[in-house]
Amino acid sequence: MKPNDQRAPVPRRKDDDHTREAAAERREFIEARSGARLTHVGAYSFDPAVTRGNIENFIGAAQVPIGLAGPLRIRGEHIRDEDVYVPLATAEGTLIASYNRGMRILTEAGGVTTTIVERYMQRAPVFHFDSARGARDFARWVDANLDPIRAAAEATSSVAKLSHIERYAVGPMLHLRFNFETGDAAGQNMSGKAADAACRWIADNHPGGARYTLSGAMDTDKKHSQLNVLHSRGARVVAEARLPSELLKARVGVEAEALFRARLNSFAGSVMAGSANNGMHAANALAALFIATGQDAANVAESHAAMTYVRLEEGGAAYYWSITLPALIVATFGGGTGLPTQGECLDILGCRGKGKVGRFIEICAATVLAGEVSLAGAVVAGDWVDSHERLGRNR
Amino acid sequence: MKPNDQRAPVPRRKDDDHTREAAAERREFIEARSGARLTHVGAYSFDPAVTRGNIENFIGAAQVPIGLAGPLRIRGEHIRDEDVYVPLATAEGTLIASYNRGMRILTEAGGVTTTIVERYMQRAPVFHFDSARGARDFARWVDANLDPIRAAAEATSSVAKLSHIERYAVGPMLHLRFNFETGDAAGQNMSGKAADAACRWIADNHPGGARYTLSGAMDTDKKHSQLNVLHSRGARVVAEARLPSELLKARVGVEAEALFRARLNSFAGSVMAGSANNGMHAANALAALFIATGQDAANVAESHAAMTYVRLEEGGAAYYWSITLPALIVATFGGGTGLPTQGECLDILGCRGKGKVGRFIEICAATVLAGEVSLAGAVVAGDWVDSHERLGRNR
Amino acid sequence: MKPNDQRAPVPRRKDDDHTREAAAERREFIEARSGARLTHVGAYSFDPAVTRGNIENFIGAAQVPIGLAGPLRIRGEHIRDEDVYVPLATAEGTLIASYNRGMRILTEAGGVTTTIVERYMQRAPVFHFDSARGARDFARWVDANLDPIRAAAEATSSVAKLSHIERYAVGPMLHLRFNFETGDAAGQNMSGKAADAACRWIADNHPGGARYTLSGAMDTDKKHSQLNVLHSRGARVVAEARLPSELLKARVGVEAEALFRARLNSFAGSVMAGSANNGMHAANALAALFIATGQDAANVAESHAAMTYVRLEEGGAAYYWSITLPALIVATFGGGTGLPTQGECLDILGCRGKGKVGRFIEICAATVLAGEVSLAGAVVAGDWVDSHERLGRNR
Amino acid sequence: MKPNDQRAPVPRRKDDDHTREAAAERREFIEARSGARLTHVGAYSFDPAVTRGNIENFIGAAQVPIGLAGPLRIRGEHIRDEDVYVPLATAEGTLIASYNRGMRILTEAGGVTTTIVERYMQRAPVFHFDSARGARDFARWVDANLDPIRAAAEATSSVAKLSHIERYAVGPMLHLRFNFETGDAAGQNMSGKAADAACRWIADNHPGGARYTLSGAMDTDKKHSQLNVLHSRGARVVAEARLPSELLKARVGVEAEALFRARLNSFAGSVMAGSANNGMHAANALAALFIATGQDAANVAESHAAMTYVRLEEGGAAYYWSITLPALIVATFGGGTGLPTQGECLDILGCRGKGKVGRFIEICAATVLAGEVSLAGAVVAGDWVDSHERLGRNR
Repeated sequence: MKPNDQRAPVPRRKDDDHTREAAAERREFIEARSGARLTHVGAYSFDPAVTRGNIENFIGAAQVPIGLAGPLRIRGEHIRDEDVYVPLATAEGTLIASYNRGMRILTEAGGVTTTIVERYMQRAPVFHFDSARGARDFARWVDANLDPIRAAAEATSSVAKLSHIERYAVGPMLHLRFNFETGDAAGQNMSGKAADAACRWIADNHPGGARYTLSGAMDTDKKHSQLNVLHSRGARVVAEARLPSELLKARVGVEAEALFRARLNSFAGSVMAGSANNGMHAANALAALFIATGQDAANVAESHAAMTYVRLEEGGAAYYWSITLPALIVATFGGGTGLPTQGECLDILGCRGKGKVGRFIEICAATVLAGEVSLAGAVVAGDWVDSHERLGRNR
Repeated sequence: MKPNDQRAPVPRRKDDDHTREAAAERREFIEARSGARLTHVGAYSFDPAVTRGNIENFIGAAQVPIGLAGPLRIRGEHIRDEDVYVPLATAEGTLIASYNRGMRILTEAGGVTTTIVERYMQRAPVFHFDSARGARDFARWVDANLDPIRAAAEATSSVAKLSHIERYAVGPMLHLRFNFETGDAAGQNMSGKAADAACRWIADNHPGGARYTLSGAMDTDKKHSQLNVLHSRGARVVAEARLPSELLKARVGVEAEALFRARLNSFAGSVMAGSANNGMHAANALAALFIATGQDAANVAESHAAMTYVRLEEGGAAYYWSITLPALIVATFGGGTGLPTQGECLDILGCRGKGKVGRFIEICAATVLAGEVSLAGAVVAGDWVDSHERLGRNR
Repeated sequence: MKPNDQRAPVPRRKDDDHTREAAAERREFIEARSGARLTHVGAYSFDPAVTRGNIENFIGAAQVPIGLAGPLRIRGEHIRDEDVYVPLATAEGTLIASYNRGMRILTEAGGVTTTIVERYMQRAPVFHFDSARGARDFARWVDANLDPIRAAAEATSSVAKLSHIERYAVGPMLHLRFNFETGDAAGQNMSGKAADAACRWIADNHPGGARYTLSGAMDTDKKHSQLNVLHSRGARVVAEARLPSELLKARVGVEAEALFRARLNSFAGSVMAGSANNGMHAANALAALFIATGQDAANVAESHAAMTYVRLEEGGAAYYWSITLPALIVATFGGGTGLPTQGECLDILGCRGKGKVGRFIEICAATVLAGEVSLAGAVVAGDWVDSHERLGRNR
Repeated sequence: MKPNDQRAPVPRRKDDDHTREAAAERREFIEARSGARLTHVGAYSFDPAVTRGNIENFIGAAQVPIGLAGPLRIRGEHIRDEDVYVPLATAEGTLIASYNRGMRILTEAGGVTTTIVERYMQRAPVFHFDSARGARDFARWVDANLDPIRAAAEATSSVAKLSHIERYAVGPMLHLRFNFETGDAAGQNMSGKAADAACRWIADNHPGGARYTLSGAMDTDKKHSQLNVLHSRGARVVAEARLPSELLKARVGVEAEALFRARLNSFAGSVMAGSANNGMHAANALAALFIATGQDAANVAESHAAMTYVRLEEGGAAYYWSITLPALIVATFGGGTGLPTQGECLDILGCRGKGKVGRFIEICAATVLAGEVSLAGAVVAGDWVDSHERLGRNR
């Protein structure tokens, strides 16, 4: 670094900052300071203008390899009995091979059944009172004023609809967890804006006003919580399949009973560890899908939570396997979904734009289940370490 | 889709599958089925051969916009009193502007102090016995045989060193959580391989053999857990700063005391929610840094956990702010770190390759703290929703 | 033991088993086998007939020492600005002295404000379906049939009123958590009976019937859970006080600021430990009150959960201290409350019988806060170990 | 209450406060204020002098009905293949009948195998530093000074032995969790005293001294925590049995497979609820045993945590059932164990005094398992509500 301008701010342009020239200027700025050569970072294929509203201080693009897994037969409600191919962006060797194997097994078993139980986005302001009594009585006042509160919230957008408000009292405070329907957007900002308007209406109309903060940490935005497990954040979705033991034996070398036994053992470990997910690696599928399709990868924090429920059926001849994702946060509209490669990947899935988020949620859940089937088989069959050796980079 | 080959597998080439031709063939395959046009996905700038070991069924690359935030003054142990600029890959509008603001405040306050408390990677096989007594006695046998177990584990790599083995008994089972030092790699595979070798040695030498599964879910790989909070996974690192109240007032319009009060309120919400992180949005910084630098984004699941500890000092004139990340999983070697744009971004940070992981960990922690400072200020000052409106795409 | 009748069942009488004679016979039975002399166990002061419905195989009574603490000034809604003396049954030396000290401080500070936020008792059956879709659709059917479900539940008792039903979907199952108002009883059995009737009505009327188990572990009966923290079990009650720093200095030798600082530190420990209570020792007050007044001491499991919220006020001159008990399960009618010594202790509190449970809940919460104030003072002042030495039995 | 001495303190005697006269005087004091008649409270059978060190402000005794359950065959290590009868103090109708049924089933199945995995008592002071670096380096200093720290701790008692010290770093703090062997005492006070001495030695010898609080909430005393589940508090003990399906069918009307299926369903509910215990009602057995035998009933908070692990064996002909109690806190010496009825109940179990705590732990665990077997059968067979109706008081 040059000592004399060590703390120089990153260059910005007043007029139009999302141009190739502005990006190049910034790359030069940091190349000069760091010695890095940003050849590939600068080799993006799109007009930087498309990133307006997505990023500031744009310098280029990360290129994350995409592989294609599939086909995966899904029997959902937004996607009926169809085979899909899933683009996954990752640098983790063996990941796509593993999901591919799981998809093949599930498809041969007749496919994955997917069910969206509910879907809301949350914002949870906290209101503060002199004593607990004020907080409790405020909850009743909110009940009595739901209609104007809803009206104030919904006036902020043509999309956001207030479904219901959870209440949580602690000490002299009341946390209100607003639940919004947000269409094909993930909806965090839309919900924030709507909740903010609701709070302002409350502050204007509640006798004595209201002291509040727009988030009291019960949203729980960008972090896992037991609250999400109970009351969902984003979509609550279930993927289920019935797997013949013979098929498992043929494809992963392990019968249903052995898989089931290992799962029981893992349940015990998971409970002892206090784990956010008593399954295996939902995060792998979700991170790869999120990056490929322009989701907010930070939401892996919430979305990776999962509950596995399994049982042997038909005297061990079949294995019922379900995974419930209580906090899957995705969109097919807004955010990064409209960026060039991201939109193309949504096209592969038939999920770009409005009216597609249900389909995309079902694909996410089915893909997660494919990964569970494959990895569980690998761990129990003992070829897990080996497959990393053979296909992946040994790290 | 064409009905007659609906379930066709994704094309692969026997000889060399990581070529432009193989990728193009697969793009054509999926374009024909889905109607997608993969122009940008195919516009990657590198030789696909570099992705060998990182991906299968390669079709191209996701291009994720990168912005540059900084400077951020860090006073760590691997990075001593230096200003860094941080590349963040994201499509979330306002994110970089927000981190930038936080970095400015922290730098003006004298910088962030960073401390790596410990760093290990884990693999946790579970051993199964006829009764709890077998499991308990096995723990003692492991104690007595630590040296040959270590030797077996460490023979699998020149890097992995076995530090210690945690034990957790439940019912007739004993979970062993192996803790390895893994150099500049994240080390999951290295640890898996070493633990596998240790298990094989145990099975060969324990009187009566051993029944085990290589993972009993206590690793806890790709998922948050309270166990990680207690005993770390990857790095346990702390970022700290002392912020003058006047500076906060000037930069975010809020004094230290107001920030502190809001944090106390949020602590209550966080405890009630059962949250993995009683701070704000570590996941945002980490996801953006992980994508830019070739980390495994699935590890946001573990890495986003955090504990915030704050207090007022000097009668409210200063605000001490610390965040502890107990499970930060990163690498500067192996995995996706060697890919073209990813390596370039590590170069920006001075973190490419061997001997750099400590520096990178400190940068991650300091960046997380910058985001906390900025967002906390925005939420308390009430300009949070507004800044999303102004800079971001309204979703 | 005599080998020839080693496995003899405990003697019972067909006609009337709750008599002094039947109890004596059983004492002789076990004295002969164990060598114990049950002089004091047999020295109970009541007619065993009063224990009918409370116990089987009655042999006598445990005599647990009771001490009297107080006065404690409470400013509640069921107990308005009144000084109470609290009977506590315990064998833990220093416990009553410590609560006494806390009560004195709170009373001198103007008393404890108590607020009951809500109170329900739960029973949570789980319904099972072929797939997640059946479970989700069943939730809608329950919504549409709330009135007859309520009617069926409430027909089982003149007291139980169904307030609302929470729903939790996982895999192919739906957990229904019924919330009942149960008057002055704790209400577990009443709720179980009412939920059972509701389930039977559902099974008879839901198209295709219903497979269910009366409890699917989400009640969560006799165990702590995060669910209870969020949605209460029994009463959710808050106790609050404002303590002058000068008073704290005079009574426990520590100023408000030192107490506050120590509490902040403990919050960090509590979060890291994953603790059910981020305060100190609610369990001590509750166990002692429960035994004295005929509550079910097993409910200490749920009832000991607590959330502490504190802050400095008036520039450190005052300390606001609140504790929220989310799952306090108590009764003033039914169960053990009508037994001789237990009823007498309820009389001391003015809490025997119908219409008194609100008063009793407020006393419990205020007593818990007294213990927090005293112990926190002792720990910070450093006299904690000493007081155990002086007053208690060194164990 | 008489207005003029409303706030009178409870009368105490300077000379000897543990006499019948002092107790009577206090009863008169509270009778005059409350209108209560404390006939039975005053009808205790022992010399109040025996309660010295157990209670202050003694006024009499709670009489809690005791019933006798058994026989229960236990195959432990401290109790080898023996049938025991268990005194349970409770006012919950059907409880003893239910445990009796479970004991009969377990005994007919060949008995319960019990295993104590480990047993320590903890005290966890927190040390405070200017920054995280100080905390981390202090951990190393503690490592290097373990011998004198141990010596300081162990000098405080002839019993307490320091086994190991866990370390947990957060922000600028280090929590040290001292683990002591405490003989037949529960050991909280002994551990507190020993840890206090260790802290004083540290403060005297650590360069620059040390700021600490004797408890930083990671003990975690009188409260459940995930930390206890992982690292035990008091005893970690497992009870196991193999139950023939035919026996279950005969005794509870349900085959092994139905019980197993219901348990799987409950596991899902338990995970979703974030429960401290994925079994049923350990708290019932423990509260009743604790009151009968002079344990600290407040420790039900910690002790009720449990992990159930079950599986079908022999094609469903047998049911393996285990329960792991990670935090069972009991004593056979000290505290309330020496009181008259409490000692007599320990005599029934052959557990009074020194050298008996292992036996008592095994009895506790086996009794808990009996309750699980019985209640699980009742819930699945559908006779749960009925049995409360028939035997208990309808509440």
